[in-house]
Amino acid sequence: MKVILARDLLGANNVKGENNREKLEKFGLLTLNMISSPGAGKTTLLEITMKTLKNKYNFGVIEGDLYTTRDAQRLEEHARSIVQINTCGMCHLNADMVAKAMEDMPLADLDVLIIENVGNLVCPAAFYLGENCKVAVLSVPEGSDKPAKYPELFKEARTILINKADLLPYTDFDLPGCLRELQQINPRAEIFVISARTGEGVEKWMRWLEERVRLVKSPTIFK
Amino acid sequence: MKVILARDLLGANNVKGENNREKLEKFGLLTLNMISSPGAGKTTLLEITMKTLKNKYNFGVIEGDLYTTRDAQRLEEHARSIVQINTCGMCHLNADMVAKAMEDMPLADLDVLIIENVGNLVCPAAFYLGENCKVAVLSVPEGSDKPAKYPELFKEARTILINKADLLPYTDFDLPGCLRELQQINPRAEIFVISARTGEGVEKWMRWLEERVRLVKSPTIFK
Repeated sequence: MKVILARDLLGANNVKGENNREKLEKFGLLTLNMISSPGAGKTTLLEITMKTLKNKYNFGVIEGDLYTTRDAQRLEEHARSIVQINTCGMCHLNADMVAKAMEDMPLADLDVLIIENVGNLVCPAAFYLGENCKVAVLSVPEGSDKPAKYPELFKEARTILINKADLLPYTDFDLPGCLRELQQINPRAEIFVISARTGEGVEKWMRWLEERVRLVKSPTIFK
Repeated sequence: MKVILARDLLGANNVKGENNREKLEKFGLLTLNMISSPGAGKTTLLEITMKTLKNKYNFGVIEGDLYTTRDAQRLEEHARSIVQINTCGMCHLNADMVAKAMEDMPLADLDVLIIENVGNLVCPAAFYLGENCKVAVLSVPEGSDKPAKYPELFKEARTILINKADLLPYTDFDLPGCLRELQQINPRAEIFVISARTGEGVEKWMRWLEERVRLVKSPTIFK
């Protein structure tokens, strides 16, 4: 029996992701690929983040959604530019879709490009879109076992947000255990425990984002 | 807000699927793309089907699996040729992967090529692999509401197998309602109620398969 690993076949997507990367670097944009399960609170987090920082930065948003434009509508008033990609049932964005969306955005006017991926813990992790980093959002009601069950995403993510921390007292989410497990899976990830709803911890996440914008705008990091 | 439909971006995959189609037609192979949820019984059905018909036809199998080779091992003894594609966490096969697998198969020696897709009711339906037809397998314990919830697959499938019919007395699966709904979603589909475990109804499915092989081997249908 011959066994083929699809990882090798993802190469074509990665080449296209690199093309996106080159284009985004040229414009000095910080690009984040936000990934989580459905309903983990990505959109609420982006709403509060963009609302707070929109006078400082011009945000572009590429919103991946299975069918609806509901999330995009929530973010529209805070974004300089927003493009919705309806994946028509597909469970992830790929580099081609993002390239297509980028064509419709005023990249030279933007400081931050947020790609809100389709709600799914599995497939989006395998597709490089040209981002500076992946941001994983895990919400407390999903359970503290998710990093061990879906290690790809948590291994790949530069930053991990544990959201809906306001629900910690009402669930059996094992926060110390989860942090320990994340530390094992991905020792270099920065982890923030937040509640996008109450605002708890969101300040730290925004400071992290500002620091990343600063780094990306400094040309030395591309040398 | 600009809205992009990814359906248009699936075009590249479809072109590659057409390339596979041309190659498969040249060899007169019946090619089935088998799609279901995880655990719906595709592998058990293929085991009984291939075991019964292997003296009549040479079967090739392309086995899509997230990580393991367990399903491929079960089918290996009944197949003339089997290639396992480990999708490394991706939730569907695409035409590229199938093209790569076909390179390792003795297509001229085969009569039937079975592509057992990754267990998933959503994404595989969107990716044309070059098959003659998609075969959807729905199992009774999944519930009779699944066709309405995941219409893409059931719309696309030429044949729909309702498997694990032996569990009908022990579940609240509404068989008449499900058949009615499938008839609305896809009036042209052929539907078989079967149990791969007990063998109930499997004979009808195998007659269907034999008839399809006959049609595909007759050169007139390619004119």
